Amino acid sequence: MDRIKPRTLSGFMELLPAPQAQFEGMLERLRKTYSLYGFTPLDTPVIESAEILLAKGGGETEKQIYRFTKGDSDLALRFDLTVPLAKYVALHYNDLTFPFRRYQIGKVYRGERAQRGRFREFYQCDIDVIGDGKLDISNEAEIPAIIYNAFTSMGLERFKIRVNNRKILTGFYDMQGLGDQAADIMRTVDKLDKIGPEKVRALLIESGVSEAAAGEILSFIAITGSNGEVLQALEGYRGRNEIFDQGLDELGTVVKYLSAFGVPEDHFAVDLTIARGLDYYTGTVYETVMLDHPEIGSICSGGRYDNLAEYYTDKKLPGVGISIGLTRLFYVLGEQGYLNPDQNTAPADVLILPMTEDLSPAIAFATQLRNQGVRAQVYGEQKKFKAKMTYADKQKIPYVVFLGEDEISRGVVKVKEMTSGQQQELTPEEAVRSIAADLEKLKGQAPIREDKA
Amino acid sequence: MDRIKPRTLSGFMELLPAPQAQFEGMLERLRKTYSLYGFTPLDTPVIESAEILLAKGGGETEKQIYRFTKGDSDLALRFDLTVPLAKYVALHYNDLTFPFRRYQIGKVYRGERAQRGRFREFYQCDIDVIGDGKLDISNEAEIPAIIYNAFTSMGLERFKIRVNNRKILTGFYDMQGLGDQAADIMRTVDKLDKIGPEKVRALLIESGVSEAAAGEILSFIAITGSNGEVLQALEGYRGRNEIFDQGLDELGTVVKYLSAFGVPEDHFAVDLTIARGLDYYTGTVYETVMLDHPEIGSICSGGRYDNLAEYYTDKKLPGVGISIGLTRLFYVLGEQGYLNPDQNTAPADVLILPMTEDLSPAIAFATQLRNQGVRAQVYGEQKKFKAKMTYADKQKIPYVVFLGEDEISRGVVKVKEMTSGQQQELTPEEAVRSIAADLEKLKGQAPIREDKA
Repeated sequence: MDRIKPRTLSGFMELLPAPQAQFEGMLERLRKTYSLYGFTPLDTPVIESAEILLAKGGGETEKQIYRFTKGDSDLALRFDLTVPLAKYVALHYNDLTFPFRRYQIGKVYRGERAQRGRFREFYQCDIDVIGDGKLDISNEAEIPAIIYNAFTSMGLERFKIRVNNRKILTGFYDMQGLGDQAADIMRTVDKLDKIGPEKVRALLIESGVSEAAAGEILSFIAITGSNGEVLQALEGYRGRNEIFDQGLDELGTVVKYLSAFGVPEDHFAVDLTIARGLDYYTGTVYETVMLDHPEIGSICSGGRYDNLAEYYTDKKLPGVGISIGLTRLFYVLGEQGYLNPDQNTAPADVLILPMTEDLSPAIAFATQLRNQGVRAQVYGEQKKFKAKMTYADKQKIPYVVFLGEDEISRGVVKVKEMTSGQQQELTPEEAVRSIAADLEKLKGQAPIREDKA
Repeated sequence: MDRIKPRTLSGFMELLPAPQAQFEGMLERLRKTYSLYGFTPLDTPVIESAEILLAKGGGETEKQIYRFTKGDSDLALRFDLTVPLAKYVALHYNDLTFPFRRYQIGKVYRGERAQRGRFREFYQCDIDVIGDGKLDISNEAEIPAIIYNAFTSMGLERFKIRVNNRKILTGFYDMQGLGDQAADIMRTVDKLDKIGPEKVRALLIESGVSEAAAGEILSFIAITGSNGEVLQALEGYRGRNEIFDQGLDELGTVVKYLSAFGVPEDHFAVDLTIARGLDYYTGTVYETVMLDHPEIGSICSGGRYDNLAEYYTDKKLPGVGISIGLTRLFYVLGEQGYLNPDQNTAPADVLILPMTEDLSPAIAFATQLRNQGVRAQVYGEQKKFKAKMTYADKQKIPYVVFLGEDEISRGVVKVKEMTSGQQQELTPEEAVRSIAADLEKLKGQAPIREDKA
């Protein structure tokens, strides 16, 4: 037979079992966190009509999208989860209850040039709250809490959520008489981290901003400190622009509720330099950076927008949402050695090695374990003892149970804890109880582990 | 602005929040069941090289597959999870430990003619055990236990797993000197349920089978009764064909281990009429039928095969696996009224209605609830009281908590259980404990509910 060389397309992540189990662990923790905040799970098709997905259009999207025909349908693969959400809410508007809070975790597709750490198929893990006409600021205040809990549940701790409010920026530039140039200025200011304040000043002046205004901008974006200090400094601008004042009130509200939401102050910073998607966000915006790896960029971003579904409906649907690009994050964490080697990634918690021809006692014991939620496998292959132990070792199965004539006749099982090598004889009931209790401790091992600085 | 009418492609399931929550409940239970049997989660790309997916070729597949080019790549969407598994095992052979036990739950694509209850995008929920060269019969014996637990965990009870062994069929037809015609005969016999024995006999004779042989075939497939009775009757054929005898031994082993695996005898039947994928399966084959809806056909099928990845590698990789087509099953269950209306499908367990301008106490209570695993939402919109209650009602949120100045000053919360309408004042700690305990009971509500016959 002519064989075809097996391969996986470049730009598509395909994991071996152990890292896949860690990836699943992250998905599970995200589903749980999102659920705790009252978001309902949503699933939409990967394929949509191209007309729907490209309603907004735009250069990069049109270039990267996977688009094809089937029969006489012009189809495309979704490139994010926001456009499908907009379609969903517009289509099912009458059947939904607002504010509509959904999470969606799914694969999206972008035919980018393949390069290290860039993926053409990747998971987005999104939450959005959609209002009907209006949406209270408290929803924007809640987002940092969700980000905080999403990452800490996965084991990440050394990160900071950066928050800004687009109204503050818009109001500030209006005050300076620079309203028309605001978008360009924000793009320049966004480079601050990379090129430093003096180059930003030069670029601003080069683009036609007066020296005085450039000075104002630089002293504005230089406002840093604790949340209280930043808010205090911003108060100095109050009363000169209505939008600015509204943004400042909103930012104050977001900061005020942090502690009630359980977000430690050191995981949160007001940062006047961030702006995010310039033509989309209108209120609070969020970025999340890893303290030890700022070069990775934001690992969770989003913000408040005013009009989710304007391409599909005349209903005004404001919302706030964030997205975690989990495939890239997982890749980066792996590269940086952040994946926890102590997490239990074995396919089973217990491998039962029957030493008798009749497997019934081994199977019955496996059934007992499973009934108590312990993942068990009976090893039924005819192999040498050493090969069986290697099977457990290679997959890091935490417990091996031996069951021979002798144990069966005495009504016991022999349990070997593989890490310590300790071995003991227990009744099946004792063994189930003891293993189940020990596994509870293993569950505390999150997928991510940082070496604390 | 020119608006585009929002729509979802026909043949693509897109659920509203409540049914989506039920669908998620099924996915969760399947993940858990598959895990308990020591299967590791696997994820492979939705897009593969067309050459890989079409290695086997074949008419229906080529017609139905979504195939397209991007740049100069000839790509396609996977139409099942078996071909990607074959590629995965061939590609990562050196990194895997055998027997390799994986589950995969994911969407697959088939551009069928759209019709009621048929989907172009649907979930398959598969498990497979792959051996390296050999695979013990005990793996085949385990499958009915997994099917049984998968369905009962979702709340389905009135179903039967039908099992046969292809070696018994092959051996039997060899005995009759009909080895060459066996495939055609099996296709005819497969119609037994629909057309009855006499029409099967007529078709067999028409196709050239002698009257005597047709009689033999009809009395063979008429063998029914308890598992013990069927095995007993089959013993009457022993000693005439080696393959038959081997199949009978295998079937005996599968039946023997049922009770150790915890499968009730009444959920299992040997059925000599089933054959499944004629060019693929070589040992035990499985079908699962709903007792009250046999017209739906098999809701979980699979079997033993000898050569998973022959198109990609010369390694012999025998395996056994089953697949549940969850999208279609979910659709059918919905149509038949089997989706449990008492399952908790609300996005949150508790809706907190703050009656004060400062939301901090409400948020702090929500944080307390979430810390104990209770899904909580603070309703922060400026709406009339009635609109807030309607929000809880419409989404069937089980608890509403009122928190006004009065409650805050007295250190209590007012909890309303929405089903009974009962209302009580509790300290926040008492409320969390009481709600968390009540919710444990709700968790017992599975996604499927049958009216017991």
